[in-house]
Amino acid sequence: AKTYQIATIPGDGIGVEITNAAAKVLQTLASNAKHFDFDFSNFDWSSKTYLERGYYIPPGGLDELKAFDAIFFGAVGWPDVPDHISLWGLMLPLRNALCQYVNVRPTRILPGTSSPLSACKSGDLDWVIIRENSEGEYAGHGGETHTHFGNAVATDTSIYTQAGIERVMHFAFETARSRPRKKLTMVTKSNAQRHGMVLWDRIFHQVRKSYMDVDADTMLVDAMTVRMVLKPKSLDTIVATNLHGDILSDLAAALSGSIGTAPSSNLDPTRNNPSMFEPIHGSAPDIAGKGIANPIGAFWSAAELVSWIGEKDASAKLMKAIENITSQGVKTADLGGTDSTVKVTDALCAEIKRL
Amino acid sequence: AKTYQIATIPGDGIGVEITNAAAKVLQTLASNAKHFDFDFSNFDWSSKTYLERGYYIPPGGLDELKAFDAIFFGAVGWPDVPDHISLWGLMLPLRNALCQYVNVRPTRILPGTSSPLSACKSGDLDWVIIRENSEGEYAGHGGETHTHFGNAVATDTSIYTQAGIERVMHFAFETARSRPRKKLTMVTKSNAQRHGMVLWDRIFHQVRKSYMDVDADTMLVDAMTVRMVLKPKSLDTIVATNLHGDILSDLAAALSGSIGTAPSSNLDPTRNNPSMFEPIHGSAPDIAGKGIANPIGAFWSAAELVSWIGEKDASAKLMKAIENITSQGVKTADLGGTDSTVKVTDALCAEIKRL
Ligand SMILES: CC(C)[C@H](C(=O)O)[C@@H](O)C(=O)O
Ligand SMILES: CC(C)[C@H](C(=O)O)[C@@H](O)C(=O)O
Repeated sequence: AKTYQIATIPGDGIGVEITNAAAKVLQTLASNAKHFDFDFSNFDWSSKTYLERGYYIPPGGLDELKAFDAIFFGAVGWPDVPDHISLWGLMLPLRNALCQYVNVRPTRILPGTSSPLSACKSGDLDWVIIRENSEGEYAGHGGETHTHFGNAVATDTSIYTQAGIERVMHFAFETARSRPRKKLTMVTKSNAQRHGMVLWDRIFHQVRKSYMDVDADTMLVDAMTVRMVLKPKSLDTIVATNLHGDILSDLAAALSGSIGTAPSSNLDPTRNNPSMFEPIHGSAPDIAGKGIANPIGAFWSAAELVSWIGEKDASAKLMKAIENITSQGVKTADLGGTDSTVKVTDALCAEIKRL
Repeated sequence: AKTYQIATIPGDGIGVEITNAAAKVLQTLASNAKHFDFDFSNFDWSSKTYLERGYYIPPGGLDELKAFDAIFFGAVGWPDVPDHISLWGLMLPLRNALCQYVNVRPTRILPGTSSPLSACKSGDLDWVIIRENSEGEYAGHGGETHTHFGNAVATDTSIYTQAGIERVMHFAFETARSRPRKKLTMVTKSNAQRHGMVLWDRIFHQVRKSYMDVDADTMLVDAMTVRMVLKPKSLDTIVATNLHGDILSDLAAALSGSIGTAPSSNLDPTRNNPSMFEPIHGSAPDIAGKGIANPIGAFWSAAELVSWIGEKDASAKLMKAIENITSQGVKTADLGGTDSTVKVTDALCAEIKRL
């Protein structure tokens, strides 16, 4: 049996609870499948260890991760540490050092759950958001000056490169092509942001020529939120910048009923580096340690991990098991249920064994 | 009777239709009130005139506008002109040259209209978004290089100043204080954008000390979309950067049922310059000239204009008349009705006379 090396980085808050839950589910899936196994290595890189040692990622930590087949990430962010420190100390360096230049964020209203939109039912909002994950508004460049003169000025510079846009655009067109409806919507704000966004538009129109079988259109990010709310069925695959993709994927998750179910995959499509899978909900300090976090986003992320490493059948079985338990009404509070994280996890493991 | 000088800039597409409609309504309101009148001057600055002459705003045009009491703006944007040219040729120079540093965007589900959110009914989503309107992501700085080498790099630099943030923050706290619930939510993305957004956070916490009677909290922009969709009743007044405010106000309009009803006020709160009122829907080339554009966003914007110049009673009457006709079911197609722009306009004028 093949053994996959998986790094787990639980991080902060409910990240710990849902990473434990995901590891248990992955273990159950492997035992059930028999022809492969997982070997987990845990990395205790969190805001707690940061406060003790002064860093999130220890020297050599990034290189160590490169030996793994995949990474499961819980969440980062804790009230004691400013968010820009925790993000730039842990999550963003991982995405960058491991060249994870696309962030794939599927949505769908799971069976047994409901959307806040009255016109949408289970199975609807079947979208995939392809978020650029390495540059743009998250370049980190900029600074602040004149702080103590009473006329402080601060800048954030978004940096876009041709190579950076082309690679994510190709990935988006390939994704659209692989889906039944073959539709792609590219989002920018090129009316207001007249440099980088105009380059995005131009590269979109160039790359599009190689994918004339894909039904592609463009939207401005503000109008895109309107389309997601009022014409959701007109959308399928979506590609957007780092910040726009961040905002639109949270909106997509909310429209599908809860941010607690939404998965994400930070991918290096070249496979030179391990990819990283994480639910998009974050550390949720308000409910951390209470045992009530929704583990479905983590399970769905685990299913994406299993698919990415090549175990497609096991991934499909895991997704099926997730849909079976949500349709049976096994749900945490955010989905209107009363079950604990452990209860949902145990129900899912039992369902995997049953399938 | 006092005569207010109003500049109208219909611009492109449905901007022309809805500006005509708004002028007619304002005229009816004045005739009805008797103690004031409007004198309209029309400025034909559009993408059509740009294509003929090479500019949107003629030399001296901005100075000419300064003599007016207020400006009514229709929309700008037309397929023949790249959006970044039309925006930076017309709308953005107006906002900047006239120091309109806040953009006020109220939402509310009007009587007789419905929200796509099943949990919300008429009267709900009673929010005011205060959008920073002069700097940040709309600074316009940046550029593109290496274009012909196959490794193009483009940048957009967001620029935030202490004075720019303080003035909009004070306006937002004052607005929150004036509303029954006295709640303010400040939105940034300071985890990822670690310079400008961190300055926003810091100034928020400083300014807040002068408004301890306001119930204020902070959100990240991605999580804010989730809160707007899933916990809409927890929100009241919202303050955000230029780009975030743009995105969140379109989302707010969609959640309230249609982008066609949403108004905006580009204000210079110092009153050194005229303020500018415009519906947020844009030029809508797909329906331009068909006579079916929803004029409610323009009428609500006109009501904001009337209030801003000091005619509070007339403004309240106009809002009441708008709500009466929507509750009677007089509606354009985007709201699920079948009425034309002219039909809605005539119904509103009749209602103003009746009140
Ligand atoms: C925590 C935060 C920096 C992060 C992001 O903006 O990328 C998160 O919102 C996400 O969507 O993964
Ligand atoms: C047309 C566009 C540049 C404009 C903006 O982004 O400010 C519009 O979307 C708005 O909201 O007024």
